[in-house]
Amino acid sequence: MDRIFSGIQPTGIPHLGNYLGAIQNWVRLQEEYNSVLYSIVDLHSLTVPRDPPYLRQSILDTTAAILACGINPKRCFLFQQSQVPEHAELGWIFGCFTSVPRLRRLPQWKIKNASQNNEGNVGLFTYPVLQAADMLLYKSTHVPVGEDQVLHLELAQDIAQHFNKKYGKFFPMPRAILNSTKKIKSLRDPAAKMSKSDPQKLATVSITDSAEEIVLKFRKAVTDFTSEVTYDPDSRPGVSNLVSIHAAVTGLSIKEVLHQSVGLDTAHYKMIVAEAVIQKLAPIRNEIKRLQQDKCHLENVLKAGAEKAKELAAPVYQEVRRLVGLQ
Amino acid sequence: MDRIFSGIQPTGIPHLGNYLGAIQNWVRLQEEYNSVLYSIVDLHSLTVPRDPPYLRQSILDTTAAILACGINPKRCFLFQQSQVPEHAELGWIFGCFTSVPRLRRLPQWKIKNASQNNEGNVGLFTYPVLQAADMLLYKSTHVPVGEDQVLHLELAQDIAQHFNKKYGKFFPMPRAILNSTKKIKSLRDPAAKMSKSDPQKLATVSITDSAEEIVLKFRKAVTDFTSEVTYDPDSRPGVSNLVSIHAAVTGLSIKEVLHQSVGLDTAHYKMIVAEAVIQKLAPIRNEIKRLQQDKCHLENVLKAGAEKAKELAAPVYQEVRRLVGLQ
Repeated sequence: MDRIFSGIQPTGIPHLGNYLGAIQNWVRLQEEYNSVLYSIVDLHSLTVPRDPPYLRQSILDTTAAILACGINPKRCFLFQQSQVPEHAELGWIFGCFTSVPRLRRLPQWKIKNASQNNEGNVGLFTYPVLQAADMLLYKSTHVPVGEDQVLHLELAQDIAQHFNKKYGKFFPMPRAILNSTKKIKSLRDPAAKMSKSDPQKLATVSITDSAEEIVLKFRKAVTDFTSEVTYDPDSRPGVSNLVSIHAAVTGLSIKEVLHQSVGLDTAHYKMIVAEAVIQKLAPIRNEIKRLQQDKCHLENVLKAGAEKAKELAAPVYQEVRRLVGLQ
Repeated sequence: MDRIFSGIQPTGIPHLGNYLGAIQNWVRLQEEYNSVLYSIVDLHSLTVPRDPPYLRQSILDTTAAILACGINPKRCFLFQQSQVPEHAELGWIFGCFTSVPRLRRLPQWKIKNASQNNEGNVGLFTYPVLQAADMLLYKSTHVPVGEDQVLHLELAQDIAQHFNKKYGKFFPMPRAILNSTKKIKSLRDPAAKMSKSDPQKLATVSITDSAEEIVLKFRKAVTDFTSEVTYDPDSRPGVSNLVSIHAAVTGLSIKEVLHQSVGLDTAHYKMIVAEAVIQKLAPIRNEIKRLQQDKCHLENVLKAGAEKAKELAAPVYQEVRRLVGLQ
């Protein structure tokens, strides 16, 4: 049986790039597959220092946001990773099957360790092993991954293969689902990805931004000195990013969007895109505000999700324990 | 409140060195302290490759052996580590507080990694972090450690200190209980520790050896060309090891043992030590055989122990989750 697993870090309210790049895709996948698990991977978020009250709030905000975006706990299991102990437990066992040099070669470790002055912590070093446990704990068959996660999926496949070779066929080989949505770029620097930590406040649209904020950010969006609306990410990254956003929020193709925009100049076009974004985000924003008032409901959603996830995880992990000889 | 935590690897039936060096000490500590936890640390045993049926059997044999040696589940919590998920969970969190260079400097990693052709696995690299979780999960105050574990206890102290500094005083600083029993040496090479993996079969006395095997091993024990019985581990390691064993199994001091042995030659003395060992081990051996017949009882002991350990561990781990912001 096909089963999807995907994780999201609890960084609070997502930005437009998160929404169009990942969450919209999640909403689609929950309709297409019968067994879908989405996890707020809070254990991973500890690999960089977090302020505890902020982390706690971010877990709830992330939950509110993805529910508001259309994730339906009746169509998927939505849960907080640390509420299912088997993630860390299977992570330990998989660590015993993964060589240190294999991890050391992963480019993400090199980059992140360098950013911590080569004093990176053990969690940062070993989190790809925990990711492998995250997906294999549910015998997941498909995993939506960004390009930067392809090597980590390969590690999970290697671990599954190694395990199966040693103990008999047990884990399916998880396969990548690559997302077709174009990466959304910064509104201030279309060479960079849109990012929550961007110091330029106008670069990033939060999905809870007000209509005024959205208009302002799109009005100030960096384009170029050609006023026509065309799609050419290499030579015209700024306006092409607007076209990508426009297509993604309306559900139209790039071609259809361009067709609608014939004769518009970029200044005018920015306002049309802003309006489309406002239309798309307004109900989401309202729903987030509503859900944020009801902390108890959010906690109950996560709790119920964790219980259901645990029902799947527990027998798999118990079987792993038996296979390796712990039981 | 004082609390002891100690772990033993499930390597099956212990040898005389394990018994006199560690298990006898455990028996004493369960009488001296009110809160004592002994764990069969099966997660640690996965850091080297294990044959699953052998590992499974070893867990039960280790349980039977330590019960037979006098560990009393009414005086302590005896449990299997992997039955308490919070060990792995807290291990993950502590990993996020431990820098990779800090672990890389530990001499045990250097030695063990070299023995695996520098392809050591992640578990072997990070197990001192799991050890820190093992003891701190119960807010243990005292930990019996061998000399080779002193640096790992220091790591646990560092992690506790770091945690307390960041989140407020929570963990006690676990202190070492150094064992006063002399290290028991190989009967064939008194320069080496007695070891289960010694290829020389006569070097190591198992606590289930028959009287004939024990007599044979002591008769063949390497001593020197002086026939007098004296205690001088540096210049006469062979006979001194016999004296140490004699003292440990009879509960007498070295001085008392020497006093009793005045006028004996080493050949005769070997038989006296063998006889004392046989006397000491006979009831243990019988009890192990009896317990090995009752797999169900052993499993129930471990299960009951895990339930009691979990009652202590769960609130500590939940509080850690709250403090770091996961809850």
